[in-house]
Amino acid sequence: MPNDTASPSHGADAALRARARRVIPGGMWGHLDVTRLPEGYPQYFVSAEGCRLRDADGRECIDFMCAWGPMVLGHRHPDVEAAARRQAALGDTMNGPAPVLVELAETLVGMIPHAAWCLFQKNGTDATTVCVTVARAATGRRKVLVARGAYHGAAPWCTPSLAGVTAEDHAHLVHFDYNDAASLEAAAEAAQADLAAVLVTAFRHDIGRDLEMPDPAFARAARAICDAAGAALIVDDVRAGFRLHLGDSWEAIGVRPDLSAFSNAIANGHSLAAVTGAERFGEAATRVFVTGSFWCAAVPMAAALATLTELRRVDGSARMRAMGERLRAGLGALAERHGVGIRQSGPPQMPLVLFEDDPDQRKGSAFCAAALRAGAYFHPRHNMFLSCAHAEADIDRALEAAAAGFAAVARMG
Amino acid sequence: MPNDTASPSHGADAALRARARRVIPGGMWGHLDVTRLPEGYPQYFVSAEGCRLRDADGRECIDFMCAWGPMVLGHRHPDVEAAARRQAALGDTMNGPAPVLVELAETLVGMIPHAAWCLFQKNGTDATTVCVTVARAATGRRKVLVARGAYHGAAPWCTPSLAGVTAEDHAHLVHFDYNDAASLEAAAEAAQADLAAVLVTAFRHDIGRDLEMPDPAFARAARAICDAAGAALIVDDVRAGFRLHLGDSWEAIGVRPDLSAFSNAIANGHSLAAVTGAERFGEAATRVFVTGSFWCAAVPMAAALATLTELRRVDGSARMRAMGERLRAGLGALAERHGVGIRQSGPPQMPLVLFEDDPDQRKGSAFCAAALRAGAYFHPRHNMFLSCAHAEADIDRALEAAAAGFAAVARMG
Repeated sequence: MPNDTASPSHGADAALRARARRVIPGGMWGHLDVTRLPEGYPQYFVSAEGCRLRDADGRECIDFMCAWGPMVLGHRHPDVEAAARRQAALGDTMNGPAPVLVELAETLVGMIPHAAWCLFQKNGTDATTVCVTVARAATGRRKVLVARGAYHGAAPWCTPSLAGVTAEDHAHLVHFDYNDAASLEAAAEAAQADLAAVLVTAFRHDIGRDLEMPDPAFARAARAICDAAGAALIVDDVRAGFRLHLGDSWEAIGVRPDLSAFSNAIANGHSLAAVTGAERFGEAATRVFVTGSFWCAAVPMAAALATLTELRRVDGSARMRAMGERLRAGLGALAERHGVGIRQSGPPQMPLVLFEDDPDQRKGSAFCAAALRAGAYFHPRHNMFLSCAHAEADIDRALEAAAAGFAAVARMG
Repeated sequence: MPNDTASPSHGADAALRARARRVIPGGMWGHLDVTRLPEGYPQYFVSAEGCRLRDADGRECIDFMCAWGPMVLGHRHPDVEAAARRQAALGDTMNGPAPVLVELAETLVGMIPHAAWCLFQKNGTDATTVCVTVARAATGRRKVLVARGAYHGAAPWCTPSLAGVTAEDHAHLVHFDYNDAASLEAAAEAAQADLAAVLVTAFRHDIGRDLEMPDPAFARAARAICDAAGAALIVDDVRAGFRLHLGDSWEAIGVRPDLSAFSNAIANGHSLAAVTGAERFGEAATRVFVTGSFWCAAVPMAAALATLTELRRVDGSARMRAMGERLRAGLGALAERHGVGIRQSGPPQMPLVLFEDDPDQRKGSAFCAAALRAGAYFHPRHNMFLSCAHAEADIDRALEAAAAGFAAVARMG
């Protein structure tokens, strides 16, 4: 970590929050609003390196959120930042893309089996929105099947909040239960001849409940429904993409989507999203109008190329899996030693820890608060994220912090 | 311009386009798709500096699009890039914002008279969407009045394209004609007690028609309608913001919006958008859920602070106005000398040139194609953009190129 920052002043985070409350509604908004986290979590960070964050009060922690996904290689990865600086020294946002656009598109199409083409955006929400728009344009239909409780972004058509959203914004969504093929078939029945797409996250990662990998039979049912109806199977790989697999995340179960949405980890923290599509949907993609002022910015694309190159070079998915398994085994042993019941779920690269008999998450909060004081940044409800910067020593150090967390839970009786 | 790029190879742009057609639907998408421009415009750019662009074939031009708005200080502005690099050396996308978030929010609230608070996003579309969502949440109503032909973004609720969009996506838009107070009043009548907001661009900049500054009487009518109904007056300042005025663009006519959307020029090419709001809408802003993975990235915020500081230091708006007036006067004189009728419209910082008796834009296209061959990048239909990097010598050089364009039009007879 850099040691050239100003010396820690206690209460710096509190002072920033107080200033923020005067100019930002509620002091913060969205998923990074720390009032959603246990007491003691910092809102502001002054620096980051690898798997370590330093908050505004100079406290350092080992990070298991990776900025909620993006930092797949760890903060300030030297190769990624060097590639970004090289492109920035030429140009970034111009009257058209830089050649790196073509190279990145070729790389993604080469990496992702279903992909015949791709388009770039900025937000994960942009990518899921483009997928749905292309599916509707291609089919001339309207209904999109989505799993109850799934998060596909924060635009009016998909936001989990109803504030400021009209009934019409989500009029053509039909719900099913993730991993329940019968409920998916029922939703398809309800959509009838108006079925445009099935939109499904790479695995079930609804907040606050055990994560579930996709049941292959469910995934095959989704594929069969789309094939029978001529609809698009859209995998929302925004959160999972490039952590589980360097193709798309369903490659592991042998089910190929028609359209995939990627974003979080694609450029190691630089703002970028991508949609990949099968040949059959390419014509529709030429007819939709989707664009943004910064969608062709060259620096994030150069960062993405470097990120994907490095993920391949170090076999990032396997590395994160190994470190995630080390964390999981260690947490399991500690929980047992402290006589605390926990449930661990999800792919090791994106783990979740929930406590037994913890309906109000008091245990999860106490665990996280104590672990953070001891130097590890865990999340009580949301899946966490490993990065390629997490080494064995970091996991072991984080487990020491987790021990303090379990001790705190054990003291609750 | 950098001279360390590879030596120009003729046909490099064509080769990149051919490669792109194999991996990108139609070869390119959105507003940067060069097939919407006259023959001869390059799709790819390898570098940029100040007001000059270099394309993939090594041809250099003086740029009057500024990446369609963002480059308000010119490409690779040293202060902005230095600020970005300083922040990047600390951290960018983290588990929460960096302190620069607070500083930037304070700066905007201090600069923009109506602003009691602000929120940050990535795309201009994000910003207009947040404004509409906050207005609906605050009022509990649904109808949004928008001007026919106005561009407010590329999301399903506002995109000018109908491909892949459902009728429900824009079910609650009610249309009026820009600068026509009677039509605005009629639209408000139609919305009745369901009126949530009037959404209006800072000036009328619909593609392919003369630009119009807002009529103060029209703006006052919009304000009065919103006041009477308790609805939100939203100014979409995404395109014009920070070029015309360092407050919001309607400050010049003395009408204060409740909510403003900013983006393009806020961070000199770094990806950022912002919504500012009046006190009365702050509570609703705490209730909506709007967020994105990169919305709190610190580097674009550091770039924005540096951009706003430099715009203030050099009195950017006045500087761009002076250069825009020099361009306008020069184009007018050249047109007269060549016996070609043109109409120039819009604020001098964001000018448009249309040709008389040119329904199919053959003259505009011939002008632009010839001027580009002579070294100036103009646009035949869309408003153009000045930057603070345009100096007198650049304008004069561009006018020489424009002379070639007018000569080409004159030859058409």
